Amino acid sequence: MRVWQVEGQWSMDNVKPALRPDPQPGPRQIRLAMRVCALNYRDLVVPLRGYGARMKELPLVMLCDGVGVVDAVGPGVTRFAVGDRVCPTLFPRWIDGPPDSTKLSLSLGSELDGTLAEAMVVDEDAACAVPAHLTDAEAATLPTAAVTAWHALVTEGRLAPGDTVLVQGCGGVSLFALQFAHMLGARVIVTSSSDERLERARALGADAGINYVSDPDWSKRVRELSGGRGVDQLIEVGGSGTLAQSLRAVRTGGTVSLIGVLAGAELTGSLGLVVTRHVRLQGITGGSRADFEAMAAAIAAHGMRPVVDRVFDSGQLLEALALLRSGRQFGKIALRV
Amino acid sequence: MRVWQVEGQWSMDNVKPALRPDPQPGPRQIRLAMRVCALNYRDLVVPLRGYGARMKELPLVMLCDGVGVVDAVGPGVTRFAVGDRVCPTLFPRWIDGPPDSTKLSLSLGSELDGTLAEAMVVDEDAACAVPAHLTDAEAATLPTAAVTAWHALVTEGRLAPGDTVLVQGCGGVSLFALQFAHMLGARVIVTSSSDERLERARALGADAGINYVSDPDWSKRVRELSGGRGVDQLIEVGGSGTLAQSLRAVRTGGTVSLIGVLAGAELTGSLGLVVTRHVRLQGITGGSRADFEAMAAAIAAHGMRPVVDRVFDSGQLLEALALLRSGRQFGKIALRV
Amino acid sequence: MRVWQVEGQWSMDNVKPALRPDPQPGPRQIRLAMRVCALNYRDLVVPLRGYGARMKELPLVMLCDGVGVVDAVGPGVTRFAVGDRVCPTLFPRWIDGPPDSTKLSLSLGSELDGTLAEAMVVDEDAACAVPAHLTDAEAATLPTAAVTAWHALVTEGRLAPGDTVLVQGCGGVSLFALQFAHMLGARVIVTSSSDERLERARALGADAGINYVSDPDWSKRVRELSGGRGVDQLIEVGGSGTLAQSLRAVRTGGTVSLIGVLAGAELTGSLGLVVTRHVRLQGITGGSRADFEAMAAAIAAHGMRPVVDRVFDSGQLLEALALLRSGRQFGKIALRV
Amino acid sequence: MRVWQVEGQWSMDNVKPALRPDPQPGPRQIRLAMRVCALNYRDLVVPLRGYGARMKELPLVMLCDGVGVVDAVGPGVTRFAVGDRVCPTLFPRWIDGPPDSTKLSLSLGSELDGTLAEAMVVDEDAACAVPAHLTDAEAATLPTAAVTAWHALVTEGRLAPGDTVLVQGCGGVSLFALQFAHMLGARVIVTSSSDERLERARALGADAGINYVSDPDWSKRVRELSGGRGVDQLIEVGGSGTLAQSLRAVRTGGTVSLIGVLAGAELTGSLGLVVTRHVRLQGITGGSRADFEAMAAAIAAHGMRPVVDRVFDSGQLLEALALLRSGRQFGKIALRV
Repeated sequence: MRVWQVEGQWSMDNVKPALRPDPQPGPRQIRLAMRVCALNYRDLVVPLRGYGARMKELPLVMLCDGVGVVDAVGPGVTRFAVGDRVCPTLFPRWIDGPPDSTKLSLSLGSELDGTLAEAMVVDEDAACAVPAHLTDAEAATLPTAAVTAWHALVTEGRLAPGDTVLVQGCGGVSLFALQFAHMLGARVIVTSSSDERLERARALGADAGINYVSDPDWSKRVRELSGGRGVDQLIEVGGSGTLAQSLRAVRTGGTVSLIGVLAGAELTGSLGLVVTRHVRLQGITGGSRADFEAMAAAIAAHGMRPVVDRVFDSGQLLEALALLRSGRQFGKIALRV
Repeated sequence: MRVWQVEGQWSMDNVKPALRPDPQPGPRQIRLAMRVCALNYRDLVVPLRGYGARMKELPLVMLCDGVGVVDAVGPGVTRFAVGDRVCPTLFPRWIDGPPDSTKLSLSLGSELDGTLAEAMVVDEDAACAVPAHLTDAEAATLPTAAVTAWHALVTEGRLAPGDTVLVQGCGGVSLFALQFAHMLGARVIVTSSSDERLERARALGADAGINYVSDPDWSKRVRELSGGRGVDQLIEVGGSGTLAQSLRAVRTGGTVSLIGVLAGAELTGSLGLVVTRHVRLQGITGGSRADFEAMAAAIAAHGMRPVVDRVFDSGQLLEALALLRSGRQFGKIALRV
Repeated sequence: MRVWQVEGQWSMDNVKPALRPDPQPGPRQIRLAMRVCALNYRDLVVPLRGYGARMKELPLVMLCDGVGVVDAVGPGVTRFAVGDRVCPTLFPRWIDGPPDSTKLSLSLGSELDGTLAEAMVVDEDAACAVPAHLTDAEAATLPTAAVTAWHALVTEGRLAPGDTVLVQGCGGVSLFALQFAHMLGARVIVTSSSDERLERARALGADAGINYVSDPDWSKRVRELSGGRGVDQLIEVGGSGTLAQSLRAVRTGGTVSLIGVLAGAELTGSLGLVVTRHVRLQGITGGSRADFEAMAAAIAAHGMRPVVDRVFDSGQLLEALALLRSGRQFGKIALRV
Repeated sequence: MRVWQVEGQWSMDNVKPALRPDPQPGPRQIRLAMRVCALNYRDLVVPLRGYGARMKELPLVMLCDGVGVVDAVGPGVTRFAVGDRVCPTLFPRWIDGPPDSTKLSLSLGSELDGTLAEAMVVDEDAACAVPAHLTDAEAATLPTAAVTAWHALVTEGRLAPGDTVLVQGCGGVSLFALQFAHMLGARVIVTSSSDERLERARALGADAGINYVSDPDWSKRVRELSGGRGVDQLIEVGGSGTLAQSLRAVRTGGTVSLIGVLAGAELTGSLGLVVTRHVRLQGITGGSRADFEAMAAAIAAHGMRPVVDRVFDSGQLLEALALLRSGRQFGKIALRV
């Protein structure tokens, strides 16, 4: 089978196609004929060995998101049958409940080979069926960004209908958070540097948009938009560059989900506000298989569809990564295997 | 009745005894003949108008902790009877559930008159009975520091037997956290600048102590003491001066309760660690009446006793505040009314 | 002011209009100019002293549901202002959290005077604002049946999108449960003795209907409709007459909310099934103010509207009760005050 | 290796020793050299094919409780190393979270071969380390009865210090519930037909005992002992014969854990009480691996020791089962492998 892997030395230049023997499923394992994979920011970092010493030795198959069809099952498999369309989960050992170091110890495309391969063998416990109404490209986007947004809003954040959620920007996690919050009856405020993107976010269900370039003290506007209270939840992806404003934008007793560090990886802002307003700052890195299953049920129930910007061929991996790096996309970038 | 109040101008020099008419309980209110009050750090800040514009106009009766005996009840009271020994709750409007701006809008000794008075009228819903085995001085210490520690460890932190908890220093909240964690079957590590205080902490149930002066990179020692994992929960009272170490001391998926800002009120430390380790930073400012009731039941069940350093007479309020400011006390400081 | 009360002797014949002095709000109380009230099955039982010795002595103002407009506020009121449209809560002492005997000790129209009065004074803590898009008649129906359905499905049942819910019949609680479950992304199966009612239930969002007269062993059909698994939640209002079937219709690990006893007040059915399938049977009697607030936010977010069968004038109270007793209505019965 | 199995026909007479080849661990599996096994009531039912068509075909290795030492590990094992002392979990697929039909689909000694074998291979995810202070016989008793009691009291029941718990009789689950409740700061009331057993229960930490033979209307006594309120939680093992009394003994808003059906497998008692008192009836059949781990941490933290009545040799299996059937034991019955 063909795979796309980092080989030889850690470098984006060494991301190359290669041939490997077809894998065979062992006890309680399934084999997937991969259909479509999807990109995440981590895929720009992985070839540089950005996750350090814990990463698998080279060669390493790229990417962590993808969907395939079961074409072989090992002994004792009960969760799936040949023909089922499933995604491997990002953290194969995180089945349910809150995370710990064991559950987070292995992830696809980093400690383990990733999804950009013609075939993949995974434990049946480390895979989820996907909603039938989704295209393969839409389904491929779910394991990382969508599960992260769901874990933040629903599992940790216990989103309730009528809540107000602030989402920063229009990256993968943020758009999923926007769509989930809207679909679950919350009001959504989006920030962006682009009025055109704010318009597209409104079309997806956002109730209000704030251009943080023209309105750098945007937390004031957020408080106005929320009747002076601040928002119930905030999806924070900017890091150092945005956290101080975020802490002024969240309500007393509210939750800030710390997901990204796009504008700096140091904590900043008023600790005094956090204490006196009883604010929760929750670091989030993905979610469990139970999160995935609950999210998939909700997506199916509401007929929700992920936003896919463009679908490349797998041979165009480097072009696809270049688009990802540019930030010009709106929605997820996918690759046909 | 006699009260001790800030009067005229906001200043520690204007904390003085005064006479006021005896208050009468209205519908669903009770009157308490106050017995003993207790001090908290906020009482050093209140006379300087440290909580700003939201504070009550002067004169303001001092202190937020105290215990009294019901000596009169208004119409419709069902929770208490004359003779019951009860504490007023710090936030009279925070009955149950998570906090919001309404529940935190009023607190004793700040937006409302405080506890250092011969008599006090409170809503029956804003008071809790205290365990029978406690002295008045012990009971007086419960509403603020003890409820804060309970809310952090149990309500937000869901402490489980066998967990490991790190407690910073030997202040009021920290000692209660130490005692509660020990009583509930957790292992406790304490940090302090004093070996003698570490010894006293051990006598209260701490399993290990770290002198952060001789061991400034104390998070390493914490990880050693927890088998490399880090602690499940951490009671953070230092703020800017300690948070970076705290984030290295907590386990993946663990919780840091942000309670104090003794060494600085800005967030510091690695946001990257918070995200990738899925850490929760939870701002805490007190707890609900339901927290108080659960805590009181646990204190009674385990026969636990708060640590009282010294009991002054109410006329010695300024001396008592001076001892508090010195930091030389070990445990709570109380005042007989 | 005019009220409608049971007077003299406990009897439906003694339900009569009467004049009482206008009530005045005390501290933290509000006065409501009542607009519309609504009926519940309990209102057929109350005049017969159906809730026993704990009921208020006569005269007793009838009904527990209603909506009014604040026309006076007592000292210290912060939750409401004159002109706000609010419902009194069924259990004035149940603010938040799980119930206990104190929280359930007082309810409107039983231990306390009810809502069918031109004016009503309640604690500001015992009232909730209603969604703006509702008519007065729709708003009046919320405090009892809707809050009960919400508490069952969401607070106790933690309904998730994609769940399957079975609702028995088309009474008040059942129709609210149907509408809430549908609005929150669940699949709904309804049972009824009438195909015409099943059709109306489908129009409200039900996904499937079962006529339990033509299909008395309806649990088999439920299992077929749920892929053999059984339903995640079941709203049980029949009692002895339906419970045995309900226990066969619910999935392993599912929840049966025990709300009504229309067909008998004794537990029946297989305890063995309950144990080996790890089923939860949850008795439900109303909900807290926090439940009401969460529900009102969800109703507003989704633009949901309660089903009102007919609005009578208050002078037609006995006619309205007769319609309720007949069971011919579909949805709630309201009374203009 | 030697095993003890039901062979040929389902019958207690066909429980016999046999030889099987030594099993080898596959990927992510461990092999245990079994040390001690323990008995549960289900072991009296299994040889009669008491769990029906879903049971494994004969031969079936007996028993579901046991402890062994890891003596071989398959590829990819990270949770355990050779030399670790561990118990297999009762439900190998129930790792965490609430149960469903998949998680409960397989159990040891019924759908799968059991523990009474010299060696056993299990998935590393289906095993738990045991506290170091326990003897092998004590450790062997944990997987079924202890985890059931923990799941009931703590996971479903959210036991809080100061709660009052009623435990029926002195069977395996009941004694564990007694010890756990006592260790976690609850007050415990025990019922039994024997004053001598009540005395032994007091020695284990029970605060009060009721002889239900001399006091058949024992719920009255329970209400007296709980200040008229009723108990917060009740461990119900009698079934039809006791449930009606249990419903009168539990407080408004309390929980009855339905675990056993010793005196009848039909639901009985007042449904009206369940509804109006908002009581929860929770069917319980074991617990998850996460329950086991939390319980083991608590047992270690508190130094708690299970009660073992007698340790037989494995050749005495039928004698051991006869003692179990007699009900004369106090505590668990163990078998050295």
